[in-house]
Amino acid sequence: MDIEDFVSRSLGHWRSQRSAHHLAFSHFEAIESEIDIEGLPPEHPEVIELCKTYAVDPTQAIAPFRMTWEGQSDWDEEEVLKGSCILVPVPDGQVPRRGKLLRDQGYAETMPAAGEYHFTDDDTFVLVTAYDHAAAEEKIWFINPDVRCRVSLIKTSAGSGVVTASFSSEIRARSDR
Amino acid sequence: MDIEDFVSRSLGHWRSQRSAHHLAFSHFEAIESEIDIEGLPPEHPEVIELCKTYAVDPTQAIAPFRMTWEGQSDWDEEEVLKGSCILVPVPDGQVPRRGKLLRDQGYAETMPAAGEYHFTDDDTFVLVTAYDHAAAEEKIWFINPDVRCRVSLIKTSAGSGVVTASFSSEIRARSDR
Repeated sequence: MDIEDFVSRSLGHWRSQRSAHHLAFSHFEAIESEIDIEGLPPEHPEVIELCKTYAVDPTQAIAPFRMTWEGQSDWDEEEVLKGSCILVPVPDGQVPRRGKLLRDQGYAETMPAAGEYHFTDDDTFVLVTAYDHAAAEEKIWFINPDVRCRVSLIKTSAGSGVVTASFSSEIRARSDR
Repeated sequence: MDIEDFVSRSLGHWRSQRSAHHLAFSHFEAIESEIDIEGLPPEHPEVIELCKTYAVDPTQAIAPFRMTWEGQSDWDEEEVLKGSCILVPVPDGQVPRRGKLLRDQGYAETMPAAGEYHFTDDDTFVLVTAYDHAAAEEKIWFINPDVRCRVSLIKTSAGSGVVTASFSSEIRARSDR
């Protein structure tokens, strides 16, 4: 699996069940959402723009995509969690299955962020992103073509303390939209 | 990391937050429990007994341990989830970081079970156990010495359908028992 395969297997409409464990309070949060992942042409103006922000040559980008989500948490049922971001993989020129992932909006903070990704020997995608006041580590792997799992950890910026650990099971939704 | 390191890092008393996603119903279940993992001497009679059940030479076993848990689910708050099992790793003689894990009681069915384990290149412990009517896949990895994550999948025995995906965050409890 390389980043191109990974993005291509991720495209589509997904139903997500996410549980967040807020470790300091032993609190469970349950989030249900729908996620859309759609491929973008490399020459898409927002892709070019994001590459410019990070001084990356746009011809090095591979398989850019847009992720859109809409969901609800049992923590605050009034609030609709909703957003969209553009993600641009930039493979490392030297090391296979490793590179940067640019995005115009992060999870932990609403700022652009560039993470470092790699694949493990069992094809788990691992993404590590350093923010100003936090670090995020994310692992995503496919169970089969229609089910994927995602574990996200938000750590303090020093990196040792885990603040939130969350787990998503994502099931592909077929043509029922 | 090999199985001996892994068991040694796992010993102790842990507080666990577990979320189970029952995928067919989009149901969330929250389980809080306390887990004790204690090393056993290789000559412990129950270890020898378990080796015999699987026709394994007890001298091949490494770092046997007992796991005891007690917890409560929000699914049925009356019921106390409680149990104990003995686990016996038997490393593969040929391939490093790979072997069998014998246990006297499984998760998915209350029968003895032998799973196949290996470690990935990022030191995730992966255990696959085939039962009569189901298969379980479990991944456990350490975030730091005092936090570990565990993802368990229960699949139909054919192996393609995922029935339950669950995630535990486990935090070491210090000398406060």
